[in-house]
Amino acid sequence: MEKITGGVTAPKGFLAGGLHCGVRASQMKKDLAMIYSQTPCTAAAVYTQNKVYGAPITVTKNNIANGMAQAMICNSGNANTCNADGVEKAEAMCQMTAEALGLSPEDIIIASTGVIGAVLPLEPIAKGIKELAPQLTADGGALAAEAIMTTDTKAKEEAYTIEIGGKTVTIGAMAKGSGMIHPNMATMLGFLTTDAAITTPMLNKALKLAVDDTFNMVSVDGDTSTNDMVSIMANGMAENPMIEAEGAEFEAFLTVIKEICTSMAKKIAGDGEGATKLMECTVNGAPTTPLAKAIAKSIITSSLTKAAMFGADANWGRILCAIGYTEGDFQVDTISVDISSTKGSIHVCENGAGVAFDEEVAKNILLEEEIHIQVELNQGEGTATAWGCDLTYDYVKINGDYRT
Amino acid sequence: MEKITGGVTAPKGFLAGGLHCGVRASQMKKDLAMIYSQTPCTAAAVYTQNKVYGAPITVTKNNIANGMAQAMICNSGNANTCNADGVEKAEAMCQMTAEALGLSPEDIIIASTGVIGAVLPLEPIAKGIKELAPQLTADGGALAAEAIMTTDTKAKEEAYTIEIGGKTVTIGAMAKGSGMIHPNMATMLGFLTTDAAITTPMLNKALKLAVDDTFNMVSVDGDTSTNDMVSIMANGMAENPMIEAEGAEFEAFLTVIKEICTSMAKKIAGDGEGATKLMECTVNGAPTTPLAKAIAKSIITSSLTKAAMFGADANWGRILCAIGYTEGDFQVDTISVDISSTKGSIHVCENGAGVAFDEEVAKNILLEEEIHIQVELNQGEGTATAWGCDLTYDYVKINGDYRT
Repeated sequence: MEKITGGVTAPKGFLAGGLHCGVRASQMKKDLAMIYSQTPCTAAAVYTQNKVYGAPITVTKNNIANGMAQAMICNSGNANTCNADGVEKAEAMCQMTAEALGLSPEDIIIASTGVIGAVLPLEPIAKGIKELAPQLTADGGALAAEAIMTTDTKAKEEAYTIEIGGKTVTIGAMAKGSGMIHPNMATMLGFLTTDAAITTPMLNKALKLAVDDTFNMVSVDGDTSTNDMVSIMANGMAENPMIEAEGAEFEAFLTVIKEICTSMAKKIAGDGEGATKLMECTVNGAPTTPLAKAIAKSIITSSLTKAAMFGADANWGRILCAIGYTEGDFQVDTISVDISSTKGSIHVCENGAGVAFDEEVAKNILLEEEIHIQVELNQGEGTATAWGCDLTYDYVKINGDYRT
Repeated sequence: MEKITGGVTAPKGFLAGGLHCGVRASQMKKDLAMIYSQTPCTAAAVYTQNKVYGAPITVTKNNIANGMAQAMICNSGNANTCNADGVEKAEAMCQMTAEALGLSPEDIIIASTGVIGAVLPLEPIAKGIKELAPQLTADGGALAAEAIMTTDTKAKEEAYTIEIGGKTVTIGAMAKGSGMIHPNMATMLGFLTTDAAITTPMLNKALKLAVDDTFNMVSVDGDTSTNDMVSIMANGMAENPMIEAEGAEFEAFLTVIKEICTSMAKKIAGDGEGATKLMECTVNGAPTTPLAKAIAKSIITSSLTKAAMFGADANWGRILCAIGYTEGDFQVDTISVDISSTKGSIHVCENGAGVAFDEEVAKNILLEEEIHIQVELNQGEGTATAWGCDLTYDYVKINGDYRT
């Protein structure tokens, strides 16, 4: 496995692009992204579990029910959710994209992100799609990654290569997500592309396994969005022997998918709305892995722990508190906690009670931009990692009046 | 039922007081509160469901296992939680209080609130208890209410009278709580006193019923504290016929207990850390009442909804989003939402989709200090109300470095 530069256009046969069409007010901000594969792809996606979900989710589910896709269209600035005419408009966007690319509407994956409950203006999108389709290029991944951003401060893309069956397989990805982030199944938006040859069932399986341990372990604010989706398209142009079942080749593919999803998940957490720090929390020794996951998420979701991180305050009692209110059966009197960063590590809690530590050393560790919290329960083999960010003045500022 | 002035010393036979003993650094801040009944009381309490819980919880549970109590001691500034010697010290505090008041240690309800995991300094408390016991008075309720505050900006006390069996029964209460507030069973600290004659089982029943719909429906930040507790002591000095079973007299008692708990719950939510507004959310027409409760709590806990309230932004899509990620079986396409305050009311959502409204009118409504969110599911008879507050810069400031 090797990390390379680039994103969704790194794998063979994928073109992409992005531009400003007018859904967002500022002409400086791109708001329409498109990805196209030169050949048909097997496709899979995972979606939000919010009972209120966007029209694009409904339409994408229908379109990839046959396990195939060939292009992706996504607008930012408007979620097309809680709109009476939402599905109709999402279908129209697919129709327009299909026409512009010479495909049928069922070949299109569609996504939208932005304000919920605002009517989607179709005119600028119609114009944008016509303009964008002829502009797609084999190095347009970065433009697409930029066009799906909302309050994100950085575009997020990644690419990896791996040898499978004697062929070099490339996997690319882009993602967005900054607020309303507490995915339950998928997260915000993630789009993966690969030139691997892999069947739809195995692609589905790899995506689900990877997302559960990566995107689904991120929280910015505890709010599960209505439009979360992670999709993957595989066009087979790497010419590896078709991955049709579990085995060494599927494992290799899964490993790189997990790696790329982990990397994107960390980027999303670190770029959480208003965030100044990435928080990584690892829980070991839990009675079960689901419980380890629940505890890790409880910690990185706790507003009090997040605010303490912002203040570089080693207030470990809040970590214990967040562990304690996690649902499930476990003991608290065997728990130990360490906090670390590139500046070192401190042991703050042993057997569920505090141990003496140097506050100055702790402060110095917590002033770094990436903080690791290690929790050891000493009660089994369950292990998990979750990612979050600190709670800051800027989170409140961004969300106090997001719509204007 | 009549609201009167005063708090825990309003009922006959209760004395109270509060002073600064030295657990908190600032001499301007009281940190030790005591309540004493001139006669033995039936007693009941409900406690946090956090698996990490304070030593005072353990000790109070033991002490009132016999259904009786006669005094209460509480310090602020230190939670006495996650300390290896916590139970020992909480027992010592009960012993000292018992000695100072001529009682036995099992007559004492004990509570602590403040930093988790800091060793409790017993010396100032020992000195404080000796000093405080002789100072207790029949109008000292306000001093006690002040001494249990931490980041609270206002002392919280209430008193009501009601006729039961031809006698005037008085019920008083004080509470504290401002951050780490998302009670699951009890909340922060609430202390109720009454001169009603009521058996321990009926007192327990009344308290549990009242707390479930009041204190347990408040959230400031989604963090369930380790030290939540609400207790009640009833000394019988009103000389009403003993309430021994359900019936009109129990119902009357329960009504006033619920009223006083509702009032305290709203005070706690409105005085949430950094809060500028009280949010009251009522859910009607849910398939069941537990589901109505879950939805109401989901809305008032949503960071995005809370931040929008701070910004006086009628971003109702965030309310729909928070409804949608509530666990349980219900439909979202029949939901309507109204937002109101003393400045009027706006209808923002109908059948799960947005309706046109005047943003200026909405802003004007949302600039008030008490905002009501009414959700109608149109799916049954389930109904619930929850209370919360907005998410502000000051919440982050207070919690970014609480310990210093």
